[in-house]
Amino acid sequence: MATNYISSWAYNLKYSDLPHDVIQSASRSFYNWVGCAVGGSNHPATTIAYSSLSPFFGPPQASLLGRKGVRIDAQHAALINGIASHVHDYDDTHLDTIIHPTGPVASALLAVAEWKGGFSGKEFLLALIVGIEVECKLGLAVWPEHYDVGWHITSTTGSIGAAAAVSKLLGLSIEQSSHALGVAATQVVGLREMFGSHTKSFHPGRAAQSGLIAAILAQGGYTSSETAIEAKRGWANVVGVTKANIPVSLEKWLGMDSQGIGLAGTNGGRWEILRNSFKPYPCGIVIHPVIDGCSQLHREMVRLGLKVEDIKEVKAKVHPLVLELTGKRRPKDGLEGKFSVFHGGAIGLIFGKGTPNQYEDDVVRDLAVIDVRDKMDCEADTTIAADETKIVLTMQDGNVLENHVKHAVGSIELPMDDQMLQQKFEDQCAAVLGDEVKPASTKCWNVEDVPDIAVISGLL
Amino acid sequence: MATNYISSWAYNLKYSDLPHDVIQSASRSFYNWVGCAVGGSNHPATTIAYSSLSPFFGPPQASLLGRKGVRIDAQHAALINGIASHVHDYDDTHLDTIIHPTGPVASALLAVAEWKGGFSGKEFLLALIVGIEVECKLGLAVWPEHYDVGWHITSTTGSIGAAAAVSKLLGLSIEQSSHALGVAATQVVGLREMFGSHTKSFHPGRAAQSGLIAAILAQGGYTSSETAIEAKRGWANVVGVTKANIPVSLEKWLGMDSQGIGLAGTNGGRWEILRNSFKPYPCGIVIHPVIDGCSQLHREMVRLGLKVEDIKEVKAKVHPLVLELTGKRRPKDGLEGKFSVFHGGAIGLIFGKGTPNQYEDDVVRDLAVIDVRDKMDCEADTTIAADETKIVLTMQDGNVLENHVKHAVGSIELPMDDQMLQQKFEDQCAAVLGDEVKPASTKCWNVEDVPDIAVISGLL
Repeated sequence: MATNYISSWAYNLKYSDLPHDVIQSASRSFYNWVGCAVGGSNHPATTIAYSSLSPFFGPPQASLLGRKGVRIDAQHAALINGIASHVHDYDDTHLDTIIHPTGPVASALLAVAEWKGGFSGKEFLLALIVGIEVECKLGLAVWPEHYDVGWHITSTTGSIGAAAAVSKLLGLSIEQSSHALGVAATQVVGLREMFGSHTKSFHPGRAAQSGLIAAILAQGGYTSSETAIEAKRGWANVVGVTKANIPVSLEKWLGMDSQGIGLAGTNGGRWEILRNSFKPYPCGIVIHPVIDGCSQLHREMVRLGLKVEDIKEVKAKVHPLVLELTGKRRPKDGLEGKFSVFHGGAIGLIFGKGTPNQYEDDVVRDLAVIDVRDKMDCEADTTIAADETKIVLTMQDGNVLENHVKHAVGSIELPMDDQMLQQKFEDQCAAVLGDEVKPASTKCWNVEDVPDIAVISGLL
Repeated sequence: MATNYISSWAYNLKYSDLPHDVIQSASRSFYNWVGCAVGGSNHPATTIAYSSLSPFFGPPQASLLGRKGVRIDAQHAALINGIASHVHDYDDTHLDTIIHPTGPVASALLAVAEWKGGFSGKEFLLALIVGIEVECKLGLAVWPEHYDVGWHITSTTGSIGAAAAVSKLLGLSIEQSSHALGVAATQVVGLREMFGSHTKSFHPGRAAQSGLIAAILAQGGYTSSETAIEAKRGWANVVGVTKANIPVSLEKWLGMDSQGIGLAGTNGGRWEILRNSFKPYPCGIVIHPVIDGCSQLHREMVRLGLKVEDIKEVKAKVHPLVLELTGKRRPKDGLEGKFSVFHGGAIGLIFGKGTPNQYEDDVVRDLAVIDVRDKMDCEADTTIAADETKIVLTMQDGNVLENHVKHAVGSIELPMDDQMLQQKFEDQCAAVLGDEVKPASTKCWNVEDVPDIAVISGLL
């Protein structure tokens, strides 16, 4: 029985069961998430949620990242930090499922940890790992049909991951944890149709909040189904209705059939958090190879003294998913720009980089950017991998530059190293935290050794 | 475009467009809902939610029905009143979709109306009708496949109905209302697997809360998709993925193709609220014919001096859905009893009625009740209608009694009249409200003429 299997696994997992690289990956995931949440704290999707919902805020239990000194009830803190952490599309990605796993889990956990108090960095990381493993395994079990139909898999699995994590942190029994999974599973938030609007980032926030209240309700004795995940009309079969053999898939990915890719720990299995990756650019990950390639071409153009306005045309061969997910030709604002491979190419060629600045509304609407965007064309090519692209740039004088990106930065083969992650953190947090960026960065980086995780939220 | 069509229809609907019977049906729906919410206010599903979530409560904005003097933030009031109103499975039913339409909508509306203040009974009823029409039409558009797959259609449509209703009450623009529908549509709460647990009643409560915050966020400028309902990866196609021709179905039921069954008003159409029905028994509606028939047999047995312990066997022919939905042979508590046609038959024969008392845990576990339950058998018969049953009761002395219920009480053909509704209201509220039942009943019955709807919540 999947629900009970998950709860038992989570209940029994100990910090001493965690390999060093798993802990390291969890610390990096948390660190990257904090940077994203602080960096997204001023975005309208975050500030509108904050101001619109402020009439409902309860007692000051948990901090809002990026709003130093502001504390609200843990439920709303989870929601708003979750929104902030996803709004720039800059958070982490489990590449096998394109789940952004840390947002829903860490947003819920940090709020509860600060509210209740007294949880060490190690307890926090253990719970974070529990949540991330659960959501990624469930995502794998329904992938790809679930996503193809139109579900935003980050939040549809995220509420369950958050519930598992909070249950672990608060020490719920196996039975209570199962009920928590059920209350979370019945709250299926996230339609892909919302991509390009504020509501996309609402999804991981709401998933965090749903998982949080699921665990709190279950702790109080609220009942749900103890077969919520696997039953005929339970989560996996309902949200994975177009996928054949959901029961087999669940058994496989949870490890109930001992294939070695199930939930990891003392019995083997595979840690999904080791397959988590970090984005160098704040946009859909499938665009990253094009930004990489165009940024390299920018440097080549500078070297050769070529000017952007003299570009005649740009042609890129890309993985077929690129155009399906990010084929917006004429994005009208920053949020839509994140779903335009053409915008990604243009900013690479013009600025040589893609930071949140290049996704400001005025950049997306800039005539020079539009000009390059219109000169760019992409061709779907089934021989091109998801982290690959081949670009041919033709200048009006006939000059031709070519670039082949075999693996984009941020891919499994070419991950962002610690220094790049730190730079990203500092870039995102500088405007919000000012002089306090460095100490905050150090504290977050060393989360494992923090005696009380609440200290961290206070810093931000 | 369905989303815009709904928002425009709701925006333009005026109280003077409402036929008298529609207003009457809305008043009855509200009245019945209040009784259910007060009656369910002491149930563990309600009290656990109240106590577990109380650390998060915000300012005193709205009342909890059945807890006189207790006021909490409007979001949580919507959640908890929504839970209370559904927990006895005693609320209204739109028979074509088995949506319980009033719970999600009224729970959100009453909380907002009390919070903001100054809304008349007429403004409240108009918004209530908007919400109920929207959720029922959307339910019809995805029915029955959506329900068959495993979605609890009351809450999956309820969040959208609640958003439409609150948008109407607060006077949001058509564009804002469309965004509200989108934020609500992306929160798809409710798996049927939860039936029989506390989480079933959590569904309409959470839907109310989701719709409420959707409208509040949209009012503050939060954006979603303006084609959230009809887009390829929008609500209808995603949650109705197993149904063919969703776009055609949406057009048909919204009335965009002018078939005359779409959203009603000055242009014709069909009012779904006129097809709303009220339950005489607090359990799955498909069981009602059996309770009716067995209660009639109880009276016949009393007349003949026959004793329950001398029953040899009971055989009922029922609509096939009865066993599919309520075939639990050995319910272990009150909540499970609601999903046992055998329990329904036993309480009819033993007590001659089915009130919330007959669904207390100790009745469900009573040996005499279990004895009759075990003597009962049901046969699915495709010639039997959903509101019909044929029962044969055989006594150990060979005596045989028969009963044919052509239409159960509460069906469209044999609706509960006003007097029955009042009796039901008073039965439910007596224990909670004491002497104040009568004045509360009168006030709620005359909701149309109340100058400020907040007065009503204060009474309860």
